[in-house]
Amino acid sequence: MKIHYPNGQPFHYNNDKSESRKKQKQVKYSNRGMTLEKELNLTNQQYLNENLAVIHKKPTPIQVVKVDYPRRSAAKITEAYYRRSSTTDYNGVYKGYYLDFEAKETKNKSSFPLNNFHEHQIQHMQQSCAHGGICFTIVRFSSLNEIYLLEAEFLFKWWDQQFLEDGRKSIPLASIKNECAQIPYGYNPRIPYLQVIDQLIEEKNSK
Amino acid sequence: MKIHYPNGQPFHYNNDKSESRKKQKQVKYSNRGMTLEKELNLTNQQYLNENLAVIHKKPTPIQVVKVDYPRRSAAKITEAYYRRSSTTDYNGVYKGYYLDFEAKETKNKSSFPLNNFHEHQIQHMQQSCAHGGICFTIVRFSSLNEIYLLEAEFLFKWWDQQFLEDGRKSIPLASIKNECAQIPYGYNPRIPYLQVIDQLIEEKNSK
Repeated sequence: MKIHYPNGQPFHYNNDKSESRKKQKQVKYSNRGMTLEKELNLTNQQYLNENLAVIHKKPTPIQVVKVDYPRRSAAKITEAYYRRSSTTDYNGVYKGYYLDFEAKETKNKSSFPLNNFHEHQIQHMQQSCAHGGICFTIVRFSSLNEIYLLEAEFLFKWWDQQFLEDGRKSIPLASIKNECAQIPYGYNPRIPYLQVIDQLIEEKNSK
Repeated sequence: MKIHYPNGQPFHYNNDKSESRKKQKQVKYSNRGMTLEKELNLTNQQYLNENLAVIHKKPTPIQVVKVDYPRRSAAKITEAYYRRSSTTDYNGVYKGYYLDFEAKETKNKSSFPLNNFHEHQIQHMQQSCAHGGICFTIVRFSSLNEIYLLEAEFLFKWWDQQFLEDGRKSIPLASIKNECAQIPYGYNPRIPYLQVIDQLIEEKNSK
């Protein structure tokens, strides 16, 4: 007899604990990403409505393998796989500046693990910075419900030190509190990060 | 007996000629898009390699409906649909400027049909321009093998006039030749469009 979970998904016996734990972890990560992503999408929509900035999330890259063309209906993709993105998730234009950023969530309460990033994302931010873009990361500590904006330079510094002997694999929250701006929750926009960008632009221009 | 084409696709009798013609047309359009897209991707990669600019094509937006998680292998998407993009296809940063553009191909020999654009793409370019971005369209006349860079302002002018009485539904090639820069084919990069952007930036700064 096939047993199904209440959500209709079939139940599989799985004795491979590590595999199962890994899968659970993956699911959790993607859920966490969703929430911040949704709030940022609403924020960006609000910025667009107010005619303040044009920032969009890039679509998730998907490798399409098989497509069906049912008659009189939309093309149906029947086999496809997620691909790793070669850039960050968000970019756009604000006050003539190119903005480029990544959004990350962590349940960690005392530090932000650097393995939230892939090498190529850091590289992409380094390249974008080098050409005059404003790059940063929005990090939510979901257990604390606190959001910070990490400037790219700050992130690069921590990224690089991890490869040194005794390098830390995470950024302590204390350092983030000390050197980065906290983004207060708003009603609309919910994550008013452009306030922080305004400061960055001011600093940039006063240099 | 089931008949198959040499490529393994089953053959279907189809008396609905208009449907069949429509499908053929769709296939052709997407093939045409591919070629220019590939050349632009190579061009952008070359610009990245030369550390000149960071421009990427955005992934095609896909609505994922069903995903299988086979044990010990990558998540497999088993039902998904193409969505209409809410932006243009390419963006990035060059000399501190936000660049945003769309690439289009036409087999037409004397004009560029405006129905190659969706209203929302024009709107996105208008918004990006308003915030200081440099927006444009790269058009290939594939039968003539000529490529032009249409500045956003030029495109907007033609887009708007189509809604007037006796408005044209396409931009005459003569007007494009007259008011837009042709991009000469290169070896590497193949479509050296940043040459034209340099001129636009110069004009922008001399205003």
